[in-house]
Formats: sequence, structure tokens, C-alpha cells
Amino acid sequence: MKGNIVVGQSGGPTAVINSSVAGVYAAAKKLGINKVYGMVHGIEGFLKGDLCDLDEQIGDETGIELLKRTPSAFLGSCRFKMPKIEGHEDTYEKVFEIMEKYDIECLFYCGGNDSMDTVKMLSDYAAAHNKPQRFMGVPKTIDNDLPITDHCPGYGSAAKYIATSIKEIMRDNESFGFDRQTVVVVEIMGRNAGWLTAAAALAKGSDCTGVDAIYLPERTFDVDKFMDKVKETAKKKASVVIAVSEGVKIADGRYVCELANENVAVDAFGHKQMSGTAAYLCSLVAKETGLKTRAVEFSTLQRAATHLASLTDINEAFQVGFDAVLAAEDGKTGMMITLDRNGDDPYQCGTSAYDIHAIANVERTVPDEWINETGDGLNDGYEKYARPLIMGELTPIFVNGLPRHLVRK
Amino acid sequence: MKGNIVVGQSGGPTAVINSSVAGVYAAAKKLGINKVYGMVHGIEGFLKGDLCDLDEQIGDETGIELLKRTPSAFLGSCRFKMPKIEGHEDTYEKVFEIMEKYDIECLFYCGGNDSMDTVKMLSDYAAAHNKPQRFMGVPKTIDNDLPITDHCPGYGSAAKYIATSIKEIMRDNESFGFDRQTVVVVEIMGRNAGWLTAAAALAKGSDCTGVDAIYLPERTFDVDKFMDKVKETAKKKASVVIAVSEGVKIADGRYVCELANENVAVDAFGHKQMSGTAAYLCSLVAKETGLKTRAVEFSTLQRAATHLASLTDINEAFQVGFDAVLAAEDGKTGMMITLDRNGDDPYQCGTSAYDIHAIANVERTVPDEWINETGDGLNDGYEKYARPLIMGELTPIFVNGLPRHLVRK
Repeated sequence: MKGNIVVGQSGGPTAVINSSVAGVYAAAKKLGINKVYGMVHGIEGFLKGDLCDLDEQIGDETGIELLKRTPSAFLGSCRFKMPKIEGHEDTYEKVFEIMEKYDIECLFYCGGNDSMDTVKMLSDYAAAHNKPQRFMGVPKTIDNDLPITDHCPGYGSAAKYIATSIKEIMRDNESFGFDRQTVVVVEIMGRNAGWLTAAAALAKGSDCTGVDAIYLPERTFDVDKFMDKVKETAKKKASVVIAVSEGVKIADGRYVCELANENVAVDAFGHKQMSGTAAYLCSLVAKETGLKTRAVEFSTLQRAATHLASLTDINEAFQVGFDAVLAAEDGKTGMMITLDRNGDDPYQCGTSAYDIHAIANVERTVPDEWINETGDGLNDGYEKYARPLIMGELTPIFVNGLPRHLVRK
Repeated sequence: MKGNIVVGQSGGPTAVINSSVAGVYAAAKKLGINKVYGMVHGIEGFLKGDLCDLDEQIGDETGIELLKRTPSAFLGSCRFKMPKIEGHEDTYEKVFEIMEKYDIECLFYCGGNDSMDTVKMLSDYAAAHNKPQRFMGVPKTIDNDLPITDHCPGYGSAAKYIATSIKEIMRDNESFGFDRQTVVVVEIMGRNAGWLTAAAALAKGSDCTGVDAIYLPERTFDVDKFMDKVKETAKKKASVVIAVSEGVKIADGRYVCELANENVAVDAFGHKQMSGTAAYLCSLVAKETGLKTRAVEFSTLQRAATHLASLTDINEAFQVGFDAVLAAEDGKTGMMITLDRNGDDPYQCGTSAYDIHAIANVERTVPDEWINETGDGLNDGYEKYARPLIMGELTPIFVNGLPRHLVRK
């Protein structure tokens, strides 16, 4: 590439999205690309001309190592959806104008479903208007719901955090006996796909009995069956721990969290803001059984806990960024880098570039065959899939007792 | 010691309470004490004759290393308060009967204020009735509210978890700009003492601007001042993050969480079950300012996250257990091991044995001089005190991608 490149981050942050930026930057350095720009707050900031120079921001190899250990979007994120082209040609022209101004040949965008739509729209516009600029998608989402790719960078680290925290919560809850029997309901992110909640299944092992039930949004939530499960388990065990997705819905289509609060807020993409499912279910349990309950929400910790990131995940996040630059150097555009699993044991994974049209706006949920018959747990198929993704650790760089992060200047 | 010893755990678990059991066990092995018994579920289980043999439970040095990395009460905990002696002599006699049966010379009890009361009552009873058995307290509480001792094992690890998680939450919340401005209120444990909430102050450093306000239960909470602080900060910063203790009270003495829910449950010690302070404050902010809000509760994670424990804390927890056995070997009884700081920089800390009567049921709160004038932050005095306590890490033993724990057989 003779010109420069730009990389942006979009959508909800993850523990390893910065590792993808590090991968883009490292590949550009290797190829001798002149300038690597960063979009400050994604395409929304880019449209305002808000760019930074990654040589200044990252600098040397120590900067890359710190960046890999920095949670959330180092460059700043956005939730900006490109408008439909018709009637908004000026917005599209603005993107190309800024790219020309900074001699940017290729734009790399790290994100999930909504962000891949931005890559699709921009590459479609370029094709329709004979523009030479290229657009590449770099997958990122803790939700793990992008199609085609075996899994998404960000998921493994979130799953590792969830499974570790579930183990710790279970130990805590087991410390008291039947005299202080407590039902814990853990609420986990995932609006439509249960991938994150499924990770609760990974807690089980020879030192952990595992959670008592896992409720995914892939199955209709039945409040009565949930209550039966709690009562039945509480007869046998002093500690009851249940994982539930924030996105579970009852038969009439309403979210469980809506049963507690009818005025659920809506975000810029029209998505409802979830929260309160565990608290609501706990209140039901307490009322019906008199048992002590505790609702736990991992909240943003599950997507920001880089101190416990999976090394596999960090490396793959880096790789998809790196390989996106190699693909663009090859002349590719309108594609996303996918992770292609070649083996489970030992785990092996390669990458390829795939047409963005098959990916943007498509949501992949947990396969039916991995959910048990009673719809309240996962089977070995899921474990075989997910276990390799949480393997390995990258020791944080501790300064003054806390993990050190890289800060944008 | 010619006879055997027993060790028990009591009250809320911590990330390092098992390190104290490891310390008791290691010291006993060093002194050639015959049998080390564990109480299953503290004095409550002991009264039922529920004991285990730590040689069988821990075994070798690998067992000790795993135990140090195991969260919550390995032996099982309880919240059992010894009754007043008069009229309950049979309960006291039962303790001595079981000690005699197992030839137990000394009982070690790891716990906080309420648990130290058990040590006091039993040693007082022994003294009054010329019983030879000895009773030693081993300090443990994330609340850090025991007097005399410089700090309490369990606090450093909870503080490290809180400060790390606050940093990660702040990074996450900073990823979006003013377009998606969000006010995060983080609720932290601590009924009467603000030590845990104060740990939010440790997040600040050259890579983190620190939280915008910290509200401790040591100061009366003023809802209007809180709201002014939020509004004022939101004018200048896209991300507003505030730490608040679950135990903050308004001027009329009611807990803030009671304002949301008048029917707050009460535990076996007569303590109100706190929860919902952050959610309530978020609802107020959303209503009054229209800003997007997010309530985060660390819940039991702050006391169970051994994967991120402070090495200083683990070592000190081990040391107080170890030194309690040495003190008992010396003939001491009715005492608790204290941590005595000899220097801040470099940090140095020794131990001594202190009369339990000065400790049991006394609560130490955050000193006035460490709280700022506006009552919404901590000053350097606190940092100087707390920073050394979060230093160092003990790498978890990862198996299948997750920290491995020791399980009671």
C-alpha cells in the first residue's frame, strides 16, 4: 500500500478490542505503511474529522504490550449507524473526502453486527461509485453472535471472566450451610444470543459442581418451571446458584425484566436496555419460598475485565487485526476476517476473509443441539466448543498494585 | 503443645481467609502438633461435633498452595453468636466437652467483630471455670473494622479487586463520548465502616483520573449535594463514575437503600441486609437529569475474587494464623493476633497478640482526617495507609482455563 490506513472501534467495548488495534498497527509497521490513523469515537468521530496518529499514541513495543492489556475502546467507540444511501449521499461523500484528505487507502472497523453493516454500506457505496478506497471488517463482540466466523474475539475473555466469577460466587455461597440457605441468581449479558450466559457451564469441573440451571434467550422462559427448579434444588442443596440471560423472554414475548419494569429504555439502535432480570426473579423466589436470595449482575465488568483476559482471545484479536491489513494489502475490500477452527484437541484456528454481505446484520445464536432437553443447561458440545477459547492468560503489568492501562494522549 | 488444636472460620468469607487456615496448619506441622482439626461451619458445626482432620483435607505442600488460592471459607462458615453465659452454661460446657473428647488444647477462630466475641466469651468462661483450654482469635474481615490491628487480612484483596474493577468500569464508561454520556454509580459493601468504599480512591493514578466522588457511611449522605455533584460533573465530563457505600444514611438516620424499599431484611446478628443503594440513586439521577445511568454492585465478588488477591494480604493472612499458633504454644489465651505496621515506605509489618476484650464488638471506622472537607473523597493519608496493602499478586493455578480451588472432602 502506498497510502495510509485508518482503524476505528465501534459498539460495546470488550476486554480485547484493543488487541485488534494493536494487530492492525503491528501489521502496518511490518508492511511499512506510512501512517496509521485512529478514529476517535469510530465513524461518528471520523465524520467530524476526529483522528489521531497511532505512532504518537502507541509508539514502541511496550506501547503495544500495554495496549493489549487495556480494556474497552482505546480509540473511543460509538453507536452510529450509517444511514441508507439514498438521500444521505453527503454523509457517504464526507467519509471519502476525509479519506482522500489523509490519503487513506483502507479503513478497518472493529465491531459486531451493527458495525459490520457500516463496512458493508461503505464498501457498497465505493463499488457503486467507482471509488478506490477499501473497507475491511475486524470482528469484535463479547456476544459471539457474528455468523460465518467460528467465534468472535472478545467472547473468550468474557467467558473466562464469567466462569471464574461464577466459581468464586459459588464458593462464597457454599460457605454457609442449610441454616443460611441462599438462592443466587446471576444475570449475564446477551440480548438475543445466549453465548455469554452459556459460559456459566464452564465453571463445572472436578473442583466445582457447576451451576444448578442456565437459562438462555434461545428458549422461552417459563417462570413456573424456574420456580420448580429452585424449590427442587433447594431441598437437596444449601447453595443454589442459577445463571440467567438478561434477554430471557416469557411465552407472550415480553422480556422477564419488563415484568418488573414496564418502562424499559431503548438505545440508539432501537435495542431495549436490559437489567433487573435477576432482581425480579429473586423477588419472586423470596416471596414464594421465603428463602434468602441474592441477585448478581456482572454488568460492564464482563466486557471490561482485561485483568483476566484469555490469552487465546488476546492473540486471536491481534491476529484478525493483523490479517485484515494483509488482506487489504492483497487488494481485498468489503470483507470481514473470520476465525476458522481446524481442530478442537489440540485447538487450532486460522483466519480467512469473507464477504461482508453474508455477515452484516445476521445474528448467530447458540445451536439447538448444544442445549439440553429441559432447556436449562448446556451439553458437552458447547464445552468442546468453548473451553479452548478461555485457555491461557496474559499477565497484567501491575503498577502500584493495579493493572496498568495505556491512555490516549 | 502435647494435645491437638482446632481451627474454625466464621462470618462473611474473604478472598484470603483460607490462607489463615493454611498458616495455622503450617505452624502446627512445624511445631509437631499431633492433630489439626477443622470445624465444619465454625462454632455452630463444632457444637454438633462436626469436625474434619486437616491432614486428610490439605495433605501436602501443594494442598497448602491450593488452599491459599481458594476463596471463601474452605471449612465452611457460620453466623452463630455465643449466647450470654448465664442460663446457657450447657452450650459452653458442650464446647469444652468436645475439646476434651478430641484432646484439643487450643481453639483458633478466624473472623471479624462478632467472631472475636466468641473467642472472648469462651476464654472468659475458661478463666471463670479454671479450664485449661486456650482460645485465640485470628483476624479476618474485608470490612477492615477491627480495632487495635493496623488492618485486617481480607481487606487488601477486596481493596485490590475494587480498585481494579473501578478502573475497568471507568475505561468502559469512557469509551463513548458525550453523545452517550452515562452516570455509573458503584455500590460497595460496608455497613458502618467505609473502608471498602474508600478503596475506590486507589483507582486514581497516572493512567486513571479516578472516580468523581466517594460517599462513605462515616458522613451523613445528602441527596441534594449528591445530585449537585452529578450535575456539575456531567457538565464537564462524558463519563461520570461515583462510588457509594451500601451503608450510607441520610440525616434522619435511614439508610439510602431503605428509601427505595422500606422492608429491608434483617440477618441473624440483627444487621439489615443492604442492597439497592446504587439502583435507587441511579433512578433519581435518571429522573432528574434524563441522563443514562448504570448501577453496579460488586456483591459477593468483592470478597471472593481470590484470582486477584493481594500477595501482601495472602502472606499476612497466613502469618496471623501461623503466629496465633506460636502464641498459643507460648501459653497465651483470650487474645487476637494484630498486624502492627512499622513503616510505610518501604512497608513493614509485624504481629503481636492483644487482649481480646479490647477488640471484640468494637468497630473502627475510617479516620476523620482522611476524609476530605466536602465529605465526598479521601486524601493522601488514606492512600499512604492502603496502597501497600494491595501490592503484589499470587498467580492462580489455572486448570482448563480457570483458577483451581481446593475442595473439602
